[in-house]
Amino acid sequence: MTAPVPADVLSRLKAVLGEGGWSQDPERLAPKLVEWRDRWRGETPLLVLPRTTTDVAAIVGICAEAGVAITPQGGNTGLVGGQIPQGEVLLSTERMRAIRATDLDDEMLVAEAGAPLAAVHEAAAQIRRRFPIGLASEGTATVGGIVSTNAGGVQVLRYGMARSLVLGLEAVLPNGEIWNGLKRLRKDNTGYDLKQLLIGAEGTLGVVTAAALKLYPLMASRAVALAGVESPAAALALLARAKEETGGGVEAFELMARLGIDFALKNIPGTRDPLAERHPWYVLAEFGSGEPGAAEAAMARFLERGLEDGLIRDAVVAQTEAQAKALWAIRENQSPAQKPEGATWKHDVAVPVSQVAVFLEQADAAVRALAPDARIVAFGHIGDGNIHYDVLRPDGGDDAAHSAGRDAGSRRVHDLVASLGGSISAEHGLGSMKTEEARRYKSPVEVAALEAIRRSLDPKRIMNPRVLF
Amino acid sequence: MTAPVPADVLSRLKAVLGEGGWSQDPERLAPKLVEWRDRWRGETPLLVLPRTTTDVAAIVGICAEAGVAITPQGGNTGLVGGQIPQGEVLLSTERMRAIRATDLDDEMLVAEAGAPLAAVHEAAAQIRRRFPIGLASEGTATVGGIVSTNAGGVQVLRYGMARSLVLGLEAVLPNGEIWNGLKRLRKDNTGYDLKQLLIGAEGTLGVVTAAALKLYPLMASRAVALAGVESPAAALALLARAKEETGGGVEAFELMARLGIDFALKNIPGTRDPLAERHPWYVLAEFGSGEPGAAEAAMARFLERGLEDGLIRDAVVAQTEAQAKALWAIRENQSPAQKPEGATWKHDVAVPVSQVAVFLEQADAAVRALAPDARIVAFGHIGDGNIHYDVLRPDGGDDAAHSAGRDAGSRRVHDLVASLGGSISAEHGLGSMKTEEARRYKSPVEVAALEAIRRSLDPKRIMNPRVLF
Repeated sequence: MTAPVPADVLSRLKAVLGEGGWSQDPERLAPKLVEWRDRWRGETPLLVLPRTTTDVAAIVGICAEAGVAITPQGGNTGLVGGQIPQGEVLLSTERMRAIRATDLDDEMLVAEAGAPLAAVHEAAAQIRRRFPIGLASEGTATVGGIVSTNAGGVQVLRYGMARSLVLGLEAVLPNGEIWNGLKRLRKDNTGYDLKQLLIGAEGTLGVVTAAALKLYPLMASRAVALAGVESPAAALALLARAKEETGGGVEAFELMARLGIDFALKNIPGTRDPLAERHPWYVLAEFGSGEPGAAEAAMARFLERGLEDGLIRDAVVAQTEAQAKALWAIRENQSPAQKPEGATWKHDVAVPVSQVAVFLEQADAAVRALAPDARIVAFGHIGDGNIHYDVLRPDGGDDAAHSAGRDAGSRRVHDLVASLGGSISAEHGLGSMKTEEARRYKSPVEVAALEAIRRSLDPKRIMNPRVLF
Repeated sequence: MTAPVPADVLSRLKAVLGEGGWSQDPERLAPKLVEWRDRWRGETPLLVLPRTTTDVAAIVGICAEAGVAITPQGGNTGLVGGQIPQGEVLLSTERMRAIRATDLDDEMLVAEAGAPLAAVHEAAAQIRRRFPIGLASEGTATVGGIVSTNAGGVQVLRYGMARSLVLGLEAVLPNGEIWNGLKRLRKDNTGYDLKQLLIGAEGTLGVVTAAALKLYPLMASRAVALAGVESPAAALALLARAKEETGGGVEAFELMARLGIDFALKNIPGTRDPLAERHPWYVLAEFGSGEPGAAEAAMARFLERGLEDGLIRDAVVAQTEAQAKALWAIRENQSPAQKPEGATWKHDVAVPVSQVAVFLEQADAAVRALAPDARIVAFGHIGDGNIHYDVLRPDGGDDAAHSAGRDAGSRRVHDLVASLGGSISAEHGLGSMKTEEARRYKSPVEVAALEAIRRSLDPKRIMNPRVLF
């Protein structure tokens, strides 16, 4: 727990923000102090609600002077506890929601940190462009959070993570000064890229207040299909072929285990088994093309060839937007469908794409050695080597007993990931949950460098002090 | 000039590298001490020629201990003097040229710092993939230099700069320790991205020794065309349309002024005027698609519509690979074609794409106020807002007189760029040439942050000390 905040600092913060700019009302604070899965609960002496970048600078300046810690929070959709304060001043960006600019020639828009992702999508659509990050939480997740956690999603294999989609940033640095880096340039080679350092820094190097986001043209054609396959190896072979045949037109390529389909059928009303027979694994593929009809043609060729040579056992192509949505819903419900099944060890890992099949086989063996009857549900962005590897308690088993084994089980999964050159956090970040775990797998050389960088910009360690290096 | 290197440090470096690992032979050193345009000449007490990453670590370790400065050098194709030592130990990567790995599933290859770009292209082609950076100097420019200067080129609007194309790095940090960050992951959210800090750091935060580079599928179809247009505004309108119509399939979109075509016709043997009439400006466009025939079809539609509504005055489409090459040669010869024309003020600037036409108009006015008879040749990557804006002496004028006006002229151009939210170095970097100029245009807040980052990793300022912040 962070040291108590002196009363005079609280007074100064309240005075500078004025009425409506802060709160200590327990009811107002409550939803911001608990993570949606209820895994983390926090506390704060004061919620500050800046309306402008100048407000943010005033807040950080006061805290920096006094050495008081701050936790920034966007939509509170993070999964690793980074946004939940443990005694720090809580800075919410909820009143900074403007879309400041939209420009077609520059193919970008400028959004404030508190703008929800859905508002970005709407603003982009108004100029017939799109921002290629889609999250189930788009109504809640904010631009500041997406940038600060380097969010990913299902289209990373084509468009990259948030890191690739930011042209410029505005931020308040840990000394309380405003950095105006809101450029909208495609090329700018004038020294270290401060923006890249702030992206994914989880609020530890400053508060992102606005971002210039890269937009992309709409696709003239789009094809969505779901295929049953024998194994992850078959899915990988299909992925390589899809990338080659479409010249980079693969918008998403997702893998699901049969057990995850079963859970969706059981626990998500309205779900229908997409194929007549059961298959060990499923691939959900989406192709996009600027050429009318090209995505559909490429998908038809891809499926036909896969069926002919046996890599695909059966497949269905969405004929309407509603069908495409229904196929995607199966994928998006993989995580919610697990909820009624009890305690889980969750992992958000990445391995080199070439190692996905090896990882799945060896992880199963490692987990089964500890928990022979656990129910393993693997799914995720196979095109990025990003697997959500979830280990559920045995059917009818005891939640507490299963949870008690989590640390040992996760250690084995993470050790395996590290041995394959992977990452223990592919897209969720480290937060409070994984920072210590990450230290274990990074070399002392890297940890020392990251610590030196942190100290160089946040020497008093006031920004999200529980988080990162 | 950097302080003299103590004799015992030279002895230790020679001893650790052994025969063939160093040189003080003036003839061996000469080509590494002069920049190819002969604008920068340098000197060094010792050329070191490591063969392995361990060698590099030994060199940097010895220099770090003694506080001796090092300048790393790749293919010596840089244009801003960053790679030319002024008394520092010169570290060449010329003996580190291996392609360590190539992997189709991971769509990447691992190349050592001294591998020339052409070797990367060859290795990628062997697995039917490509690395989408093309430079005229590909036989000489090296992976280490491309990464360290965040190189760009003509395909940035689709694939991004080097920064977007690096999956992992291996480097020796300024303390002499090896950082093995050679991951080949698409997603890795575990703290500050050290790799992004080293990319574009121009050798000031360590020596890049190897990189894992992202590869892309080959395109099934490709179309190259050259169009005559009335104005940069017309070119911009065409660009927006091309992006929209191809759904992101624009591989390159280059602008050239007529005067640059005239210089190519006059000074580059074998050049032919591509269109029957003269036009004020020219656009060279390349489309690519994964769908066979799609790029050609999109180009045909694009040109037809442009001709119909008058945005395009005339156009030619390459029917063969040889014709495509000939069209590209006109663009690639824009810079060489100026050489016989005498002294030039050169600028590598970027502005927001929406501001390109404004920039060109206002820059001409600003320059003409100082040099009414100068010959202005603008060309470049309009799709990225990146203009190479060159101001040549008057026809038959005096080189020295023109050069004498350069600083004042460039100041006006750069002031204009800054006022439009642009960058004074779009793709060349800062090197020795532009570091002071960049300080002028960055805010004190940003400069202080960049200096703090530099100090955090290179506290003795031994890595390329003349360069960056």
